[in-house]
Amino acid sequence: MTSPATPAYRRLSVEERRGQLLDAALGLFAHRTPEDVSLDDVAEAAGVSRPLVYRYFPGGKQQLYEAALRSSADTLNRCFAEPLAGPPTERLGRVLDRYLAFVDEYDAGFSALLRGGSVVETPQTTAIVDEVRRAGAEQILLHLGVERPGLRLGMLVRTWIAAVEAASLIWLGEGKRPPAPELRDWMVDHLVALLTATAAGDEETMEVVRRLLAQETSGGPVADLARRLLPVVGEAAHLL
Amino acid sequence: MTSPATPAYRRLSVEERRGQLLDAALGLFAHRTPEDVSLDDVAEAAGVSRPLVYRYFPGGKQQLYEAALRSSADTLNRCFAEPLAGPPTERLGRVLDRYLAFVDEYDAGFSALLRGGSVVETPQTTAIVDEVRRAGAEQILLHLGVERPGLRLGMLVRTWIAAVEAASLIWLGEGKRPPAPELRDWMVDHLVALLTATAAGDEETMEVVRRLLAQETSGGPVADLARRLLPVVGEAAHLL
Repeated sequence: MTSPATPAYRRLSVEERRGQLLDAALGLFAHRTPEDVSLDDVAEAAGVSRPLVYRYFPGGKQQLYEAALRSSADTLNRCFAEPLAGPPTERLGRVLDRYLAFVDEYDAGFSALLRGGSVVETPQTTAIVDEVRRAGAEQILLHLGVERPGLRLGMLVRTWIAAVEAASLIWLGEGKRPPAPELRDWMVDHLVALLTATAAGDEETMEVVRRLLAQETSGGPVADLARRLLPVVGEAAHLL
Repeated sequence: MTSPATPAYRRLSVEERRGQLLDAALGLFAHRTPEDVSLDDVAEAAGVSRPLVYRYFPGGKQQLYEAALRSSADTLNRCFAEPLAGPPTERLGRVLDRYLAFVDEYDAGFSALLRGGSVVETPQTTAIVDEVRRAGAEQILLHLGVERPGLRLGMLVRTWIAAVEAASLIWLGEGKRPPAPELRDWMVDHLVALLTATAAGDEETMEVVRRLLAQETSGGPVADLARRLLPVVGEAAHLL
């Protein structure tokens, strides 16, 4: 992640220079734990002097880390945007593809951030992570057609987001296995299963499931899951 | 959580005194964020002097916090133990009842710990939390009859544990609504749904589901969920 030589050293605007330092920091924080990134590393990666880094980020590593986290949060929030058209599970699949590409790119930094206990973790960094979770939940509710979810549906959405985070961390820990498209499909199935089980006892969720199912196709992920489920359900025949 | 006056001040053994201070700390850390607990509070709650607290815990608040966390982790690990007999969903329900009673008792401390970003959070505290998660996963696998799970089943168990943690935090944030028994039932349904959806694409999980279903009863939670699911599944008839 070293930047090319910078012949136009003096010609960069303040914003450009800040962006260049931030890019260098992002590249380093993406692939190492915060503990393993020093100001000298950032200066070297950006091809500038350490005092110059301090001029732009007087708060040093902590400030650079928070700026890099802010930038990553904005990237993730953009990933979540998806037009409200087509089968909902396919929309979700596309969002998850973008999300997993992000996790793949920022692997070590993503793990260090979410595993907790890092030296750079502060109420401020926790607040940024929570903001991303909230943005994710809002996007899902938008696609579910619900503005203010009741207790169960709200808990369902937030719980599934936590499950996706956990699965992403496990995926990184397992050397990115299974392949990302399989993990994506499993996460989609997980949400469908959770919505279905919750709908069985909550009228609001049932309404949502009805609306979603009406937009699915017979060749889509829900139909595929339903077909694959038949033999599993057959195993429960003795209970009915 | 103040302790009674201690007339036998000098007669407590080292272990008893340590236990008394730890109990006082646990009571405080349970209901406040670590930031809001001081050594003076612990001394006052235990009815002893601040220097005495330091004599037993020379590392001060951090050491007391880690000892309290260690003790809570041991309590939680004991909650997880459940005989390998009877319908599996009923066993799970009993473990979740004990777990939710713990979450209810240590509410503020539980939230502060798992929300992250706290001043007392260190790699050591993160390791203790991870150990509890691992112990929970091991207990579940024991009941599933699997020693070394494959990729999908292992991910399923760990992901569900993360979902339970997230749901517990949301539950605390929502003023402990819905009532604990409803949350417990929803968590059981969540695991059943996730096992079922995963079994639809993973032979190992399918084997596990077969074994589990054979131990369920027609009056139990799986049968109840299956009956409640019928109208939901009816909504997907057009996809098949």
